[in-house]
Amino acid sequence: MKPSALDSGDFTLPGEAGHEQLTLRLAKKWGADTIRDSDGTQLSPEIVQSGYAIYSTICLPRSVQPWARVNHDKLQQNFLMSFPVIATKSKTNLTLLAGFFTEQFAVNVKDSPKQWWQVFDRTTGQEVAKSKWSFNPRLGTVTITGTTPGHRYTVNFLAFRLWEEISMYNHLTNNWGDREHLAAVDPMQPETQKVLLAFLEQWLRDHPDTKVVRFTSMFYNFSWFWGSDQKTLRDIYSDWGDYAMTVSPRALRLFAKQFGYSLTSEDFVNGGLYNSTHNAPSRRYCDYMEFIHGFVIDFGRQCIDLVHRHGKLAYVFYDDHWIGVEPSSPRFKEFGFDGLIKCVFNAFEVRLCAHSTGVKTHELRLHPYLFPTGLKGEPTFKAGGNPTLDAKNFWIDARRGLVRAPIDRIGLGGYLSLVEPFPDFQDYIEGLVREFRLLKSFHAGDRPWTAPAKVAVLTAWGNLRAWTCSGHFTKGVELYDVLESLAGLALDVQFLSFDDLVADGVPAGVKVILNCGRAGSAWSGGHFWSDPRVEATLTEFVQQGGGVIGIGEPSALTQPGQQFRLARVLGLDRDGGERVANGKYKYVAPAGRVAGVADHFITTDVTAPLDLGKDVDGIYVFDGSTQVLAERDSSPRLTTHALGKGRGVYLSGFKFTFENTRLLHRAIYWAAGQESGWTKWSSANVKTEATYFAKAGKLVVINNAGEPQTTIVTLGDGRSTRAVKLDAHGIAILDL
Amino acid sequence: MKPSALDSGDFTLPGEAGHEQLTLRLAKKWGADTIRDSDGTQLSPEIVQSGYAIYSTICLPRSVQPWARVNHDKLQQNFLMSFPVIATKSKTNLTLLAGFFTEQFAVNVKDSPKQWWQVFDRTTGQEVAKSKWSFNPRLGTVTITGTTPGHRYTVNFLAFRLWEEISMYNHLTNNWGDREHLAAVDPMQPETQKVLLAFLEQWLRDHPDTKVVRFTSMFYNFSWFWGSDQKTLRDIYSDWGDYAMTVSPRALRLFAKQFGYSLTSEDFVNGGLYNSTHNAPSRRYCDYMEFIHGFVIDFGRQCIDLVHRHGKLAYVFYDDHWIGVEPSSPRFKEFGFDGLIKCVFNAFEVRLCAHSTGVKTHELRLHPYLFPTGLKGEPTFKAGGNPTLDAKNFWIDARRGLVRAPIDRIGLGGYLSLVEPFPDFQDYIEGLVREFRLLKSFHAGDRPWTAPAKVAVLTAWGNLRAWTCSGHFTKGVELYDVLESLAGLALDVQFLSFDDLVADGVPAGVKVILNCGRAGSAWSGGHFWSDPRVEATLTEFVQQGGGVIGIGEPSALTQPGQQFRLARVLGLDRDGGERVANGKYKYVAPAGRVAGVADHFITTDVTAPLDLGKDVDGIYVFDGSTQVLAERDSSPRLTTHALGKGRGVYLSGFKFTFENTRLLHRAIYWAAGQESGWTKWSSANVKTEATYFAKAGKLVVINNAGEPQTTIVTLGDGRSTRAVKLDAHGIAILDL
Repeated sequence: MKPSALDSGDFTLPGEAGHEQLTLRLAKKWGADTIRDSDGTQLSPEIVQSGYAIYSTICLPRSVQPWARVNHDKLQQNFLMSFPVIATKSKTNLTLLAGFFTEQFAVNVKDSPKQWWQVFDRTTGQEVAKSKWSFNPRLGTVTITGTTPGHRYTVNFLAFRLWEEISMYNHLTNNWGDREHLAAVDPMQPETQKVLLAFLEQWLRDHPDTKVVRFTSMFYNFSWFWGSDQKTLRDIYSDWGDYAMTVSPRALRLFAKQFGYSLTSEDFVNGGLYNSTHNAPSRRYCDYMEFIHGFVIDFGRQCIDLVHRHGKLAYVFYDDHWIGVEPSSPRFKEFGFDGLIKCVFNAFEVRLCAHSTGVKTHELRLHPYLFPTGLKGEPTFKAGGNPTLDAKNFWIDARRGLVRAPIDRIGLGGYLSLVEPFPDFQDYIEGLVREFRLLKSFHAGDRPWTAPAKVAVLTAWGNLRAWTCSGHFTKGVELYDVLESLAGLALDVQFLSFDDLVADGVPAGVKVILNCGRAGSAWSGGHFWSDPRVEATLTEFVQQGGGVIGIGEPSALTQPGQQFRLARVLGLDRDGGERVANGKYKYVAPAGRVAGVADHFITTDVTAPLDLGKDVDGIYVFDGSTQVLAERDSSPRLTTHALGKGRGVYLSGFKFTFENTRLLHRAIYWAAGQESGWTKWSSANVKTEATYFAKAGKLVVINNAGEPQTTIVTLGDGRSTRAVKLDAHGIAILDL
Repeated sequence: MKPSALDSGDFTLPGEAGHEQLTLRLAKKWGADTIRDSDGTQLSPEIVQSGYAIYSTICLPRSVQPWARVNHDKLQQNFLMSFPVIATKSKTNLTLLAGFFTEQFAVNVKDSPKQWWQVFDRTTGQEVAKSKWSFNPRLGTVTITGTTPGHRYTVNFLAFRLWEEISMYNHLTNNWGDREHLAAVDPMQPETQKVLLAFLEQWLRDHPDTKVVRFTSMFYNFSWFWGSDQKTLRDIYSDWGDYAMTVSPRALRLFAKQFGYSLTSEDFVNGGLYNSTHNAPSRRYCDYMEFIHGFVIDFGRQCIDLVHRHGKLAYVFYDDHWIGVEPSSPRFKEFGFDGLIKCVFNAFEVRLCAHSTGVKTHELRLHPYLFPTGLKGEPTFKAGGNPTLDAKNFWIDARRGLVRAPIDRIGLGGYLSLVEPFPDFQDYIEGLVREFRLLKSFHAGDRPWTAPAKVAVLTAWGNLRAWTCSGHFTKGVELYDVLESLAGLALDVQFLSFDDLVADGVPAGVKVILNCGRAGSAWSGGHFWSDPRVEATLTEFVQQGGGVIGIGEPSALTQPGQQFRLARVLGLDRDGGERVANGKYKYVAPAGRVAGVADHFITTDVTAPLDLGKDVDGIYVFDGSTQVLAERDSSPRLTTHALGKGRGVYLSGFKFTFENTRLLHRAIYWAAGQESGWTKWSSANVKTEATYFAKAGKLVVINNAGEPQTTIVTLGDGRSTRAVKLDAHGIAILDL
């Protein structure tokens, strides 16, 4: 491609009214083709009419406030579980909203409590008969009769949400005082749909210069229940993927009609755990998700059609009100969106964006956000901040994903005026965007080289939640760390659910199945392992030459005497404390170059004792067929095991580091039995990674560290090498 | 009492033929009234006729070897679970004893496999139909047809034991070469009973000088299954309290007749976990224990009657073949034993011995055992050893229990000749026995002072296994540490089962209930918490002023959203990883005199950060009503909580140390709401303990440490004090 092609295009700039000159200067410097508004900023006519394409943000459920204020019974709602109360007498009184933030929630007194609510004796686990309790709408209390002293009681009840959570969060975080509390209307009401479509119609007319309508996102927010005392317990519950905040009597009625059975409040409340994405979902809840996904597509499609009828494009932002959107769903394409925009901190989020097949344009919003402070309150664009270094560090994380998967556009967000005092930031972004355009050009009509052995990550969610767990990176959930490692590796990774596995077996070409997470989690799989076909399929897969990598508590679902269903594949199991009397095989203590680590293909690049984060203990191996490569306190941490023609690898935990990424990469090769192919397109220095684009004849070597690096890259013949020197955060492009 | 009364009596000396002079000299020096034989030693006529009472050891099930050798079908047997085999085809072959020690086990080919055995598909958890498998007695294999590739299969089968385990252990440990392998006969066979009674009759005739028949113990050994490779997996299964080695077709038939239902092999095998004492037992297994206990009493009584008819006494040793004896059972007295002998390492074992109500004489066998090496192979009575220091250290541990509970006799065991080169040891034992006699005299007709608040330890076993978990102290089972602490404290401690609690409520006078252990263990209670009356009773107990102390995973039995059934009593719960999306209350970080420890009545004597052993993490509190006194990594480790008029205390683990013993002692006072009574008879220095005997007017102050100590003891008025200086390992007796 011509160098000039690297100078412009594929970049979205946040414009800012009042800073027109800066906006246009940076639009030129950074080669923007598009200018957007942001939360808190507007575009002036001078910007809008400057010839750039314009993105305009819209959040439909919050868009009709005057109507929402007079239609409280059309607001969104959800089930809450009251805080437990212990009975002391045969009559027990309970204030439903005690402990909850009453600016967010109001008890739904409109829909019949006796029809929709449930009262539980949590000590027995039994529902209290509806005749035994009564609701006082004036006091917001429930009185239960016939209670047993010493028993715990809770009420599942419906609550309207008076304050939409993103509005609430921004308002309270930024001390917005008496600025309006925005409420979210429920588009499942036919009347509300009419109001929303009318609003959208008018909005489209009012934004003639807008090229792209940027939905944030569709209708329902991720779940976020606030507590009354925000100093000690602000987030009673917060889950990026739970459909809790879509519920209403209408939704439940329509669900029952469509699925032929009725859901109860407890299907959503689940003893106060709700339906966290991190826990293995029930079948009933999965049905409900399917139902809501269908509704969001149906009504979403009407909105998008309207946008298209106005000659505009519709992009969707993958966060906030994204519930029911599911960009990795096979039905996502039915929305008819033109683009998907993902804000990214990490490489796995780049892969997530690239992974969606229902849109033409995949766009990333990079960090840092143009804001005085970062997410943790640290200075960015103000005194004490170093936004250029921030940008470099975010970029090297995102870039690991960008070299592996094609992304169409990138952009920034926030207050553009803040970058004015930082000329080095302005210069760095100019180079960054060029680097992006160059990488994008290599992806054009080509795919970077990947290892012949495909990898499948097995979780309860499978492809529906590919390249994510639940929102941004969360410490302590090992699969995030694994995904972050995988996101930059030259591997073909796919995501498999237990249902997929049972229905179709291990997909063709997949040589390694990875299962990672704690017992009961959606990631490990929890109750999905109760289907014996899962274990049998994977065991046979390994017997016939496949590889399994288990991390943490893989396949954990307790049977008498066994915790991991794949114990015999991995050659080990976990003792949860029930095996005090059962002897443990005395394995050969690992010893090698690095103290406590046995030398092995997998540990070749290990230079220090393993740091696998907060890993699992109590692991024991069955016999000498399991090789322990690392241990702690007599609990194996890294093992290998052969079964039939195949192999199993176990890691007691995982933490994203360069060394661990390499360890996992090698473990995958070993599990696939493809050690002989390891050197091909590999980079010796673990802080660097190599990517080969065959059509372009380019070898891209990236430095993932903030210090200069040298490395030796082995080429596709597995023998010839190239020595490469890299600047801090740097990249090298070699012509081959 | 007269000083001379301290010079002799109540001491059992191990005599040794060939060392008659030493035997008689030490018998005099130590004031022995009794001489015993030991495993490996004999008494010569000179000793036997020297005027001392004689104890003679007998182990009935091993006593009739010639008969056992020709009656292999009368040997003891048990169920084993074969090691799992993974099917690769529709026909699967499995060698039953693969992995087991074939000098210990032989497949029972006599009793119909189809009647007694079970084959399981462990992948589905289902039993394989009896028509689908066949046994080849010649090869010792089972062939299963219709197997599913990738599934795990195991066979539960009956195996005779060819080698009795104590014989096997001693033989192999001491390299006894071609010395005979003793086998244990099963006294449940009527024919065997006749043989054993005839043997005993003859034995009694052959031992005219024996005063006490010392049974070791009755008929059935604790469970001990050995593996084929003793270097890597000697103990496949080893449990001091499991009744696994009592099973036979005859026992199962008699059980079915008595209880009206049949047990299966899986009731014993339990997926390879067997019925470890450490795990909460099933109801069916408890029935079986009751059945065996009844049989052991019935046939044991016949043996003891025979002893009595010969004018001798019958003592039972509380170890080895003790299964079915259960000295804390209310039925134990039916045996008609005259004495109970317990070997002790720890204070809790002293209390265990004293606790049994079915015998007149409670005797302790102290450590060190007179042997060249100790239990861990360390030198004792040989070069490099310091047996006097060993004796002192064992003594100060046992003495904590001895001051709290009356014991009638003490003694030693082993090879007496070994003490000859250690005159300081000879002198120390002389003083030790005098100290014992003095303490015994204080107990006569009196009980030492205890706090007014009684304590009950709630476990699945309750009083049946009072003052023990399963055999000697096992690291990592916190209740042992707790029992060791309690054993020396001025508290009235009782042991309560869940059945007791449900039937009769909290016993009168009990102010504090203690529940300690990991989830699923017999100590925490596991499935016994599924009866809601347990939680309700304890919750009401606290509401009305009682105290609960939870340690580790108390009351753990998962419900949706809750792990500890007493969570609301303790004001906290454990997050097993399922609460990633659930917010946690931000408590006030503990701070006080000692970094990270809040000042409180309970922590008054804490001088360093808490060391609670391998404690539990993931603890979270509900709200500000729970006070966090210590934490680690944001997980509370020591908390207090008020509920109604009562109190709850939580400790995330427990380890026996002087400071922790004091911490627990104070926690009990606090939970009982009796802080104001704390100073009464308390000793300020945590390495010392004070015991007051009212009738004798004696205040006994012991130094539990190996260095000299000073302390201040507060007297019964809670105000007056005495300063006390103590030698290392020393004791002070104050007249009051």
